[in-house]
Amino acid sequence: MLSPLLAGAALGERIKLTEEQRLDWLRLIRTDNIGPRTFRDLVNHYGGARAALAALPSLARRGGASAPTNICSREDAQAELKAARALGVELVALGEPDFPPRLQMIDDCPPLLAVRGKLDVLLRPQVAIVGSRNASAAGVKFAERLARDLGAAGFAIVSGLARGIDAAAHRTSVTTGTIAVLAGGHERIYPAEHIDLLAQILVEGAAVSEMPLAWEPRARDFPRRNRLISGLSVGVVIVEAARRSGSLITARFAGEQGREVFAVPGSPLDPRAEGTNGLLKQGAIMVTDSEDVISALVPILGRSFDVPIEEPAQDEPSPFNIEPGEDERTRITGLLGPTPVSIDDLVRLSRSSPAIVRTVLLELEIAGRLERHGGSMVSLL
Amino acid sequence: MLSPLLAGAALGERIKLTEEQRLDWLRLIRTDNIGPRTFRDLVNHYGGARAALAALPSLARRGGASAPTNICSREDAQAELKAARALGVELVALGEPDFPPRLQMIDDCPPLLAVRGKLDVLLRPQVAIVGSRNASAAGVKFAERLARDLGAAGFAIVSGLARGIDAAAHRTSVTTGTIAVLAGGHERIYPAEHIDLLAQILVEGAAVSEMPLAWEPRARDFPRRNRLISGLSVGVVIVEAARRSGSLITARFAGEQGREVFAVPGSPLDPRAEGTNGLLKQGAIMVTDSEDVISALVPILGRSFDVPIEEPAQDEPSPFNIEPGEDERTRITGLLGPTPVSIDDLVRLSRSSPAIVRTVLLELEIAGRLERHGGSMVSLL
Repeated sequence: MLSPLLAGAALGERIKLTEEQRLDWLRLIRTDNIGPRTFRDLVNHYGGARAALAALPSLARRGGASAPTNICSREDAQAELKAARALGVELVALGEPDFPPRLQMIDDCPPLLAVRGKLDVLLRPQVAIVGSRNASAAGVKFAERLARDLGAAGFAIVSGLARGIDAAAHRTSVTTGTIAVLAGGHERIYPAEHIDLLAQILVEGAAVSEMPLAWEPRARDFPRRNRLISGLSVGVVIVEAARRSGSLITARFAGEQGREVFAVPGSPLDPRAEGTNGLLKQGAIMVTDSEDVISALVPILGRSFDVPIEEPAQDEPSPFNIEPGEDERTRITGLLGPTPVSIDDLVRLSRSSPAIVRTVLLELEIAGRLERHGGSMVSLL
Repeated sequence: MLSPLLAGAALGERIKLTEEQRLDWLRLIRTDNIGPRTFRDLVNHYGGARAALAALPSLARRGGASAPTNICSREDAQAELKAARALGVELVALGEPDFPPRLQMIDDCPPLLAVRGKLDVLLRPQVAIVGSRNASAAGVKFAERLARDLGAAGFAIVSGLARGIDAAAHRTSVTTGTIAVLAGGHERIYPAEHIDLLAQILVEGAAVSEMPLAWEPRARDFPRRNRLISGLSVGVVIVEAARRSGSLITARFAGEQGREVFAVPGSPLDPRAEGTNGLLKQGAIMVTDSEDVISALVPILGRSFDVPIEEPAQDEPSPFNIEPGEDERTRITGLLGPTPVSIDDLVRLSRSSPAIVRTVLLELEIAGRLERHGGSMVSLL
């Protein structure tokens, strides 16, 4: 059974959270070991964040937590909400009218998005322009041209506020509307030299973050942030990218999320074109002109989205109503190790039901003992 | 019925022309209004070049020639053969053992190819590398790298001896074997500054031309020459090409001849990449490394060629045995004008048989009144 809030989102209805609900959502997502997917599972099952919060200690204990779960307190959540509002930041919840509609469709969508600036820019069709920090003059020039043309065509330009291509894309679209997706919190703008650029962005556009206000971005927060850049967008244009660069991570997310991937070609002798030429070989759409992007995206804009929230099968008991036996818990946990294995394999090898396996995994996750990888792979920490 | 020579070629047998036959072939192809396709039609029908030469005056008269056809004299042909040999140039005939096998398969293959240098390089698998005369340093460097790697992999490198990319490709493959395809005759090397490069090419490679020795290349001879560059090759790599450049003509020929088309990407801001990026958008294979070419071509090398010589249908009288009536000739000629029309349309609109229409067209061609275009289109001159 879906919670009324998420079910409403799934059906295209838009409901506002009460202030109390928003506080509970914030407490739950700020609690240790709870990521966007687990948040969604818990709220959908318990019918709301408050009930999920209440269930956490018992879930963690069954998962073998070595210490009591560090649940975000009501006071901390209140303080974050207050500080956010003082900075002009709104915490918009998944399913609310102001939540960016396309982002909602990714399966690890943040339940709360901290938005600063103009909310309405998030409701317009968005296209991402990303690329090297160490960009060439030609790359910067092309990014500017593309951002200007796509902005004029009605797209909001999404990027990561980094040096190089990102900054060029934002700078050229401040008047038409651009969205900076932050890897840290709104109080920790990175790089600091772009604080002035951010001020210009906020006039007609927005900055968004899923992290607490004061979160200092670490290296691993950038790839995580990149899924939001692609998730917001109908398509992602990679202007310049060296091999193994962050922009290629954004391109991979875009592919996984069903977004169009575009790449700008470059000389084989230019290391900044290695990544983009590689994407083109893998089937990305070549961009030498904004028209290449527009003609590919316009037909998509009219399409309705598929909603990735899964309704539980009718004949399958809701997982959390089943308490796994101690034997089953031991057997399933025993199959896990530091090497990621698929949940399907766990079900097959443990000879337990999928519902039981999912419950044990959730318990382990909340206990801080499980890591989830892409493709339904899990490993023990 | 095919002539023994061309039928032999079609069946993969290799026959040497006698000296007299070679002289007749040379006279026929050097005669006004006789191109490679008409040469093939005539020799196939009359069973040899000598009989075709004898039939020319009557064919031209029926086609309404305003003056007697200027048939190349035996003396002129002898003089050309002698001068060629003095320069170390062999006139190799279609179907002979030394004739490049792949070139033979294009439908406007020259019946005689004037070859200077090493004949055996023409029997190895060939790949063309072509591009801008006004090449960038990066383009030149990439062409050199590609020519070196493909040469080392066993390919002979075909190009057009032009400045820029062509020269870079030749220069880097003089030791492994390279073939310069000339737009003019062997006595009129263009550009003259590449006479030294040509000397290096001839040590392990060859220069080829379909034109008379002393032919000064005109602008329109270059596109015509480009069909030989692609026709010799298993695949054609375009390194740099502006919009509407000659290299794109080579790429178009390659496509029509069923050769693989490769292109090197470049920045959208570089006008020398406009043509290559355009080819990539149309489906050319992207090349950032020689391995891209090798892995695409190696599977093709093992395949046998399709032979484009058409055997006349058994139930269709050979066209030249039918003399069209004056009415039919007038009706068909009346349907022609300066705007190209398809031969199929002519057959339909004239209500004549295809054989009659083909005969009238051949008469007009030999009379110098017909122009043939691509796609079986013809127009009156």
